[in-house]
Amino acid sequence: MSVDVNDINAAAQRLAGKAVTTPLLESPLVNDRLGCRLLIKAECLQRTGSFKFRGAYNRICQFTPEERERGVVAYSSGNHAQGVAAAARQVGTKAVIVVPRDIPEIKRRNTESWGAKLAFYDRDTEDRVAVAQAIADKSGAVIVPPFDDERVIAGQGTIGLEILAQARAQGAVPDAVLIPCGGGGLTAGIATAIKGSAPDCRVITVEPAGFDDTRRSFAAGERVFNDLGPGHPTTFCDALTAEAPGKLTFPINAELVDGALVLDDGPICQGVYTAFVDFKLVLEPSGAIGLAALLCGALAPVFEPEGKTIAVVASGGNVDPATFTEALGRAAADTRAD
Amino acid sequence: MSVDVNDINAAAQRLAGKAVTTPLLESPLVNDRLGCRLLIKAECLQRTGSFKFRGAYNRICQFTPEERERGVVAYSSGNHAQGVAAAARQVGTKAVIVVPRDIPEIKRRNTESWGAKLAFYDRDTEDRVAVAQAIADKSGAVIVPPFDDERVIAGQGTIGLEILAQARAQGAVPDAVLIPCGGGGLTAGIATAIKGSAPDCRVITVEPAGFDDTRRSFAAGERVFNDLGPGHPTTFCDALTAEAPGKLTFPINAELVDGALVLDDGPICQGVYTAFVDFKLVLEPSGAIGLAALLCGALAPVFEPEGKTIAVVASGGNVDPATFTEALGRAAADTRAD
Repeated sequence: MSVDVNDINAAAQRLAGKAVTTPLLESPLVNDRLGCRLLIKAECLQRTGSFKFRGAYNRICQFTPEERERGVVAYSSGNHAQGVAAAARQVGTKAVIVVPRDIPEIKRRNTESWGAKLAFYDRDTEDRVAVAQAIADKSGAVIVPPFDDERVIAGQGTIGLEILAQARAQGAVPDAVLIPCGGGGLTAGIATAIKGSAPDCRVITVEPAGFDDTRRSFAAGERVFNDLGPGHPTTFCDALTAEAPGKLTFPINAELVDGALVLDDGPICQGVYTAFVDFKLVLEPSGAIGLAALLCGALAPVFEPEGKTIAVVASGGNVDPATFTEALGRAAADTRAD
Repeated sequence: MSVDVNDINAAAQRLAGKAVTTPLLESPLVNDRLGCRLLIKAECLQRTGSFKFRGAYNRICQFTPEERERGVVAYSSGNHAQGVAAAARQVGTKAVIVVPRDIPEIKRRNTESWGAKLAFYDRDTEDRVAVAQAIADKSGAVIVPPFDDERVIAGQGTIGLEILAQARAQGAVPDAVLIPCGGGGLTAGIATAIKGSAPDCRVITVEPAGFDDTRRSFAAGERVFNDLGPGHPTTFCDALTAEAPGKLTFPINAELVDGALVLDDGPICQGVYTAFVDFKLVLEPSGAIGLAALLCGALAPVFEPEGKTIAVVASGGNVDPATFTEALGRAAADTRAD
């Protein structure tokens, strides 16, 4: 195994006092409604609004003095960009983030606020990985990939350690953990941490419809790509649109993951709504997909939650007011239509 | 003094494992923007979505066996109702909540979900306190008032202990604490806790315009009532519309509070917006008013925040989607107009 529990324990020590130990939240009312015990790992309260800070910091804080001098380069227009930028600032090294030329203003501003420099590429004619590589080749900066990196995976895995410890402190033992899945780094880290000390706990991924590369890869026994060509369905889970499982993350997840769920946008809106109403958390659609899978009944065919303890990773809350408002509105309309 | 630090320490022991130790959140980006260190006590993540559970539980868990048999009665249509209902359920006693006949459906459902019974009164012809008293007289149930009760005040004061301990763990010492103020129970508890071990920390109340009874009472040196007759301004801070400071809370706050601020709805929307964007928290307008006072510059004339550490009590998040969406929209429009 490329990442083991020792790596995750070491990451937890590095992150102590740097990352937020996000709360594991519970609502007796929601438990009554669902007939199970739901624990929400509120990673939207993490520094930069998503779990990405953990992996980025665990990678960047291990830079050699020479690497710190040269800095970091990353390609992302979203949560990973902010995680890298904040981690670089914390470590005291410089960051360049490769972003599309048409990056939304708010994401540009957020990333720059952390002190990162932006390098622009053209979506239609350029490949962002190649642009990042060219910058790395020229400046000597270290590329920190969004998921396919052992130290990034180990950093995300600290969430799994915290879930088990916090659940124990609340007198609970998770029977299953639901994890939003893009490239699979969050899943690989958490699965490694969970299976290391709670091997009976089911680890289940959740992906948005049209971006179910992980589910299809499990079925095929090899990495399968999403077809992202013209006519491909869109999703508002913009953080979960990786084109395929990672080369490192896939074998880990193929061994450790017990089930893979896929959800449409409608149920995901219900996840956003329940997080708002019952937990007072702002979740982006990608961050609410695990909760949504439990709420809409998608989990039951894979693992019956009745009477069980289900932990849900609420992975991020970086959502603009318009999208959030739209999700709340759709959820309310769907509820009325029931 | 009717409530002292020992009472609050005892309340903290009673609440351990029952109430959520809500996180004290911080954003380096927001700190950069404001030029001070802002610590947000996220009490919206408390059981029932507001701080009210603390005081209610600290009161109800001290019921004698006879009192438990007879149950509790409270008058509230909002956060106190849910706090009492949840605390009664936790303790294993029954609760009756006196609510207006036109209570919004969602509040009715929430309160009933905790197992409380509702008793209705007519806003125009009946007095809710008298209705509660009649129920208490008949059934022997114990009235738990929303703020004017020593054990309720002590319960709310546990927030102050947590702020000091959590700030210390993060290497911070608050120079001032901003507290949303209705009847003054939250303020009295927190002020007692804070001044007990950090006497130099300023304690400052924030009220919505038109409901500034606490500020005016401080100025008058006696309890002054809001004129809630026809033509009185409305506010969307529905949790801060007590008619006057309490008989118990007023002398405590008159001695311990260092300043009293009053805000219009516009700046309060900015508080809701910043909690959403930068902290991923759902705050009701009443819960965002402390944050808002810092953001809009209202604090500066009373206490210059530049270079200081300011703790803000984000007291609750029980807001319906329509009001929340409206607040976000108003904040965005005001920002564009700047």
